[in-house]
Amino acid sequence: MDTVLTPPTPQTLAKQFKEVRDLSLEICEPLQPEDFVVQPVVDVSPPKWHLAHTTWFFEVFLLNKFLPGYKLFNKDYPFLFNSYYENEGERWIRSERGALSRPAVNEIKAYRAYVDEHMEKLLQEPLTPEQTHIFEIGLNHEQQHQELLVYDIKHILGINPLFPVYKEKVKPRYQPNLSSKWLTVEEGVYKMGYAGQQFHFDNEEGEHQVFLHAYEIQDRLITNGEFMEFINAGAYQDFNLWLMEGHEWVKKENIRAPFYWMKEGKEWYHFTLSGKERVNPEEPVTHISFYEADAFAKWKGMRLPTEQEWEVACRMYSPQIPEEANLMDCRNFRTMPRKGNNPQFYGDVWEWTNSSYLPYPYYKKVEGALGEYNGKFMVNQMVLRGGSFATMKNHIRPSYRNFFHPNLRWHFTGFRLAQHI
Amino acid sequence: MDTVLTPPTPQTLAKQFKEVRDLSLEICEPLQPEDFVVQPVVDVSPPKWHLAHTTWFFEVFLLNKFLPGYKLFNKDYPFLFNSYYENEGERWIRSERGALSRPAVNEIKAYRAYVDEHMEKLLQEPLTPEQTHIFEIGLNHEQQHQELLVYDIKHILGINPLFPVYKEKVKPRYQPNLSSKWLTVEEGVYKMGYAGQQFHFDNEEGEHQVFLHAYEIQDRLITNGEFMEFINAGAYQDFNLWLMEGHEWVKKENIRAPFYWMKEGKEWYHFTLSGKERVNPEEPVTHISFYEADAFAKWKGMRLPTEQEWEVACRMYSPQIPEEANLMDCRNFRTMPRKGNNPQFYGDVWEWTNSSYLPYPYYKKVEGALGEYNGKFMVNQMVLRGGSFATMKNHIRPSYRNFFHPNLRWHFTGFRLAQHI
Amino acid sequence: MDTVLTPPTPQTLAKQFKEVRDLSLEICEPLQPEDFVVQPVVDVSPPKWHLAHTTWFFEVFLLNKFLPGYKLFNKDYPFLFNSYYENEGERWIRSERGALSRPAVNEIKAYRAYVDEHMEKLLQEPLTPEQTHIFEIGLNHEQQHQELLVYDIKHILGINPLFPVYKEKVKPRYQPNLSSKWLTVEEGVYKMGYAGQQFHFDNEEGEHQVFLHAYEIQDRLITNGEFMEFINAGAYQDFNLWLMEGHEWVKKENIRAPFYWMKEGKEWYHFTLSGKERVNPEEPVTHISFYEADAFAKWKGMRLPTEQEWEVACRMYSPQIPEEANLMDCRNFRTMPRKGNNPQFYGDVWEWTNSSYLPYPYYKKVEGALGEYNGKFMVNQMVLRGGSFATMKNHIRPSYRNFFHPNLRWHFTGFRLAQHI
Amino acid sequence: MDTVLTPPTPQTLAKQFKEVRDLSLEICEPLQPEDFVVQPVVDVSPPKWHLAHTTWFFEVFLLNKFLPGYKLFNKDYPFLFNSYYENEGERWIRSERGALSRPAVNEIKAYRAYVDEHMEKLLQEPLTPEQTHIFEIGLNHEQQHQELLVYDIKHILGINPLFPVYKEKVKPRYQPNLSSKWLTVEEGVYKMGYAGQQFHFDNEEGEHQVFLHAYEIQDRLITNGEFMEFINAGAYQDFNLWLMEGHEWVKKENIRAPFYWMKEGKEWYHFTLSGKERVNPEEPVTHISFYEADAFAKWKGMRLPTEQEWEVACRMYSPQIPEEANLMDCRNFRTMPRKGNNPQFYGDVWEWTNSSYLPYPYYKKVEGALGEYNGKFMVNQMVLRGGSFATMKNHIRPSYRNFFHPNLRWHFTGFRLAQHI
Repeated sequence: MDTVLTPPTPQTLAKQFKEVRDLSLEICEPLQPEDFVVQPVVDVSPPKWHLAHTTWFFEVFLLNKFLPGYKLFNKDYPFLFNSYYENEGERWIRSERGALSRPAVNEIKAYRAYVDEHMEKLLQEPLTPEQTHIFEIGLNHEQQHQELLVYDIKHILGINPLFPVYKEKVKPRYQPNLSSKWLTVEEGVYKMGYAGQQFHFDNEEGEHQVFLHAYEIQDRLITNGEFMEFINAGAYQDFNLWLMEGHEWVKKENIRAPFYWMKEGKEWYHFTLSGKERVNPEEPVTHISFYEADAFAKWKGMRLPTEQEWEVACRMYSPQIPEEANLMDCRNFRTMPRKGNNPQFYGDVWEWTNSSYLPYPYYKKVEGALGEYNGKFMVNQMVLRGGSFATMKNHIRPSYRNFFHPNLRWHFTGFRLAQHI
Repeated sequence: MDTVLTPPTPQTLAKQFKEVRDLSLEICEPLQPEDFVVQPVVDVSPPKWHLAHTTWFFEVFLLNKFLPGYKLFNKDYPFLFNSYYENEGERWIRSERGALSRPAVNEIKAYRAYVDEHMEKLLQEPLTPEQTHIFEIGLNHEQQHQELLVYDIKHILGINPLFPVYKEKVKPRYQPNLSSKWLTVEEGVYKMGYAGQQFHFDNEEGEHQVFLHAYEIQDRLITNGEFMEFINAGAYQDFNLWLMEGHEWVKKENIRAPFYWMKEGKEWYHFTLSGKERVNPEEPVTHISFYEADAFAKWKGMRLPTEQEWEVACRMYSPQIPEEANLMDCRNFRTMPRKGNNPQFYGDVWEWTNSSYLPYPYYKKVEGALGEYNGKFMVNQMVLRGGSFATMKNHIRPSYRNFFHPNLRWHFTGFRLAQHI
Repeated sequence: MDTVLTPPTPQTLAKQFKEVRDLSLEICEPLQPEDFVVQPVVDVSPPKWHLAHTTWFFEVFLLNKFLPGYKLFNKDYPFLFNSYYENEGERWIRSERGALSRPAVNEIKAYRAYVDEHMEKLLQEPLTPEQTHIFEIGLNHEQQHQELLVYDIKHILGINPLFPVYKEKVKPRYQPNLSSKWLTVEEGVYKMGYAGQQFHFDNEEGEHQVFLHAYEIQDRLITNGEFMEFINAGAYQDFNLWLMEGHEWVKKENIRAPFYWMKEGKEWYHFTLSGKERVNPEEPVTHISFYEADAFAKWKGMRLPTEQEWEVACRMYSPQIPEEANLMDCRNFRTMPRKGNNPQFYGDVWEWTNSSYLPYPYYKKVEGALGEYNGKFMVNQMVLRGGSFATMKNHIRPSYRNFFHPNLRWHFTGFRLAQHI
Repeated sequence: MDTVLTPPTPQTLAKQFKEVRDLSLEICEPLQPEDFVVQPVVDVSPPKWHLAHTTWFFEVFLLNKFLPGYKLFNKDYPFLFNSYYENEGERWIRSERGALSRPAVNEIKAYRAYVDEHMEKLLQEPLTPEQTHIFEIGLNHEQQHQELLVYDIKHILGINPLFPVYKEKVKPRYQPNLSSKWLTVEEGVYKMGYAGQQFHFDNEEGEHQVFLHAYEIQDRLITNGEFMEFINAGAYQDFNLWLMEGHEWVKKENIRAPFYWMKEGKEWYHFTLSGKERVNPEEPVTHISFYEADAFAKWKGMRLPTEQEWEVACRMYSPQIPEEANLMDCRNFRTMPRKGNNPQFYGDVWEWTNSSYLPYPYYKKVEGALGEYNGKFMVNQMVLRGGSFATMKNHIRPSYRNFFHPNLRWHFTGFRLAQHI
């Protein structure tokens, strides 16, 4: 804790900034203008909204406060592109983001260019610690939205009966290994939570201790092939396997398989970013809700790990983040199989845990708008851990906490099992 | 009635066809690609959907049936672009038209070109009477959608806080005349309904007789200025003026003024196709629901005319359709004031009547899909008469029946008053 | 029309009052206290609410205005028992009437006794014409609620899986006659609307003329047996027979048969006020919506009569109201078959017409609360004519207009067919 | 753990059974028949449903399985009175319990008498351990419903504008003490969970260890007076204090104060089981949601305790359950103030914790219907601890876990604060 980090130079920050900003546009490269506009369900935002909202973040939290003489690009944009920051005033209703054709994509690109240009000015001088902190949040925020962009683009294309291809698939570089063994963790008091000096979010902050009873946890994720057995066993209809709200969701939404799956004859297909493909039984299952993960675990007579169990096992068995974790760099938007028979904790899909998203013992909500970033969501959501193939590499760490409502599944979700010993 | 109409030559039909088809694209000319996609409310369809649906009509009802060897442009399009024709099979759900980014606008233009090219082939030979009838419905259908396109484009731009301009306004060619007098119709039996040999819709077919008690009807529409008095009198809050379902709608939707109106300080503004403007008190009020028209009439101690009263008075006092009626030709998308002190029955905005949309005595529903065109809507809707500035000239006739649910007001609506004598 | 009616004596009014008031309680006689409370759907009101609301009518419109020194029975009751009279102030929300266990039935009976006692005082002196008018409305209002009481009691008992018996059935006094012939009406101008000196509602007021084209109309109602053929023909699934909103209702509500019908094996049963019984194919079909009546007519290649056609045919072919019409007097709550082969226009079930509920030419809405009685409902509803076995005899007349939304069917509805000649 | 419990004698069980069964009827004693029927919101069940459902539990899980020759009282009752046990087959939909007037209260009392009589027969011989276990669950189940009965009766009477009195208030036996101090718990590993040999629920089973960081916790609950300060500070409007879903709930439901509170002039009143009364600032605040408790804690710069913190502090500072805890015995249905300055952990109102309802490490869902008792609710709910004045004394224990959705507040809820040291 005593290590003093050398503050990054303005040049470093400017380079980081450019890289992150460029990637957002690169992700949208394959889209047609029409794809930028739609919002098929409330959880999905139009891609052009993501491009503008991440820009708004730098505009209101940095430029508008710290760059002397800065003028808003457009006085209506803060109203249009504030997401949920009550401290930043009124905003366009979330469910109606898809009702806005304007500003058009080109106008939003001009907005990005304008803000980037002014950010470059701001970054010519060293930032204060406060500015640096906000700047880092801004970059990490945009990286989170880059992952959301991939979720949302997949949703927009995937519910379209024409099943448009986002990008032709890159051949995976290695073969999957379906061997599976249990990793053991003994009873004891363990440390968890973020303890380093790098950027991290407030919700993972504060190393603290937890007592864990002895448990076993799988060294890889559940696969499509294993999930097909669950389907074939009629488990979607067996209410004894389900949480009550989960089974009500199954019945109301007529859920029969993971999201994007379609059966043709006896064969399962699914929509991928490369179009419609046969489901590969060797890949990790994805696009399942917490309810489905939980029911699968019960069907096996087991359970999902808690986030504490996941983090402790991860630190113990996968202390290094493998190079392959960040497949975003590969621009290969596919759920990836495990490499060799190494325990795999990252880089494929986010893993549902049986933990609710709640504050850590030392959690303190920050004052003002940035306090709204994470803290106000700490109810009715479940924690996911690990990171997906669409997660930025610098977001891959044992302490990172992702969270979603238990019925959602348009993001890249999966799970592994645990049990007591 | 004995006149035998000479069937139009193939060249004439091909020319008509091209004119109608071109106009649809011309209407969309000012749009950006993003504007073609959105569906802010269920009643509005994305402009690209209109372009494709009108094309689908020719494809399935003519080409696919009568052009030997015709191949569908895309086997998924009938599913995507069928509107409500149960006889034509399954279709994409109406409320989710705005969830589809694809086919992109360019693909839909290619679809139009493909169908137009094959239509030209079909039109090289004389059509059978049956084909001619379907062809005429197809043209009139597309013209109806051209008017809907204008409604929907206005809605898409008008709910956007940026208030984008569709087209700069053309200066009106004449001055309004606000003088008003009552036109009298004596008690008696009158003829109404379509009695000619030209194209007309099945819902107006069948000349028949009605008995009318003596009445007076205004020679012009109610103006914005008159409607402001209604607002200022607190009439939106006076339940005694309203139908119960109308007042529930007012309270639930928090209605205070016509659609697109905004008050700034003491001044009323409204969104027009030329952007935000001050409300001109001399123009006919528009974008009001049946409920508002009915409440205004009660506030004046009068009532709306029935569609029978409207048609009889129109035939009596405005037998000629004035040149100005079709302002669509002028490409001037504004509600137009009356010319001189002539009675004005057309060319400004559709007029709510106090008649429900019900079948005429001799109405016969056609067999098959085209029977679904009008007949299945004959419940819970109110009749509008006259035609708006966005109505095609050949749709302007005394017998033409338009119909909408009583709460809707994104189309160009208005009204005049009547009373017994 | 010049006949001067002798005003009724106070004794006559007091006797009428007592008879009407007693009947409301008699209708509720077979109920258990629990039956008075529930509201299974928003259209149904708890029986105790009907008992109180009809009492409130006399209290606020007569006693409170005209009986010197009158004190409200309970200052909260006007809030609880006002139905929809905006002029009478705030009121308990309609959909939550079933959430109120208090006042208990006994308290409401005490309320009735209190108001009755004061009404007797008021009726000791001759009423002014204005008071007489309100008094007559009050009586007719309570009689309308007596019919609603029967609808609502049937609903409350009929959706209960225990199918409780309201009252054992009284054997019908005559045999049905299923012969059917067409009654002819020639083209011409006819008079309609109420033209007498007796009590009538404002919505039927004003004799006026209508032009009718020649038509035929059935001399009896469609039977259960005929309706079973419609069901067996798969007509509920044949969208070509339905209004679009009707077929959406069929699909959304999964409608397969009239309300209260259940199929067991190959046999149709239905819930009656005497419990579950086999459906008698010779009785008029009832508990069908306007949509079902309309679809049946289309299935037969015919149509429903308009209310004008119904009234003119009724006046022509059934000028006398048959003694059997008012089966309420018989306390025999069953749909009754036709007597002999007389044309039957009353006394079985209300008949859907293809007319929307709209004002007559001379309709004038009364000032104040009583103007809300009928006028504010004149949109989105369809007219029913004739009267049911649960209609009070003095409500049976050719000009009486009943009206309901087209999807409703818990009341005693039926229909006959018409066609042009 | 080695202590062998002597199984209770049949006489003891029969006596226990009678006491529990009698109390359910006693709780309903003050009700009128109409009060037994209504269901103002989905979470509330009609009192007669509680009386029948608790009876059904004994009928299907004991009599029907273990009493030879037992005949169901009524073959339709299992359908009507199964609550949520999928293993027990189809059931009447929960939200429509208030739509059933029958069976009437007297029939349900006859049902209770019938089942009680047969239970007496079953209890003449010693029960097997399995039977004893089910019997104990049945008794505890009925006791839980006795508390629910009080919640629901209060709701039914409390939303009625007449504010009916359930029972006149018994004078409290002691004076409140508003002194408050912080109880300290040091960092360490603590035991929690049920570890005894008495009856307990599966969700509290399995003693296990937890690591707690040092914290302080209040020795009494937050009072009405303290909550008024929160209201007066405008905290309901200060979004920074709220979870996002909490503040959306506040805005949508227009929440301004605890449930049942009404402001008249400057004075707060609330509905109590003894009718409308002034809010006593010295009593614990109740009828607040988790969201309100959480916002209050944030307003104070503190937080709610977790259920682990609550249980450990309770075991440490209140090892004995005070006599006053079970005020149900006193039949005094009021939130009770603290006695003296003792730490108070029971007997007033249930305390919201900041813990989601999740399984304990050793939790095992039981096979079959009884496995549905607790386990299937373990998502989206928050844990409450302590027990209210309406909780049966034998349910008051440190390990007992109650759970509700975070927005609910018709039950007797409250909270205390905690903070780290």
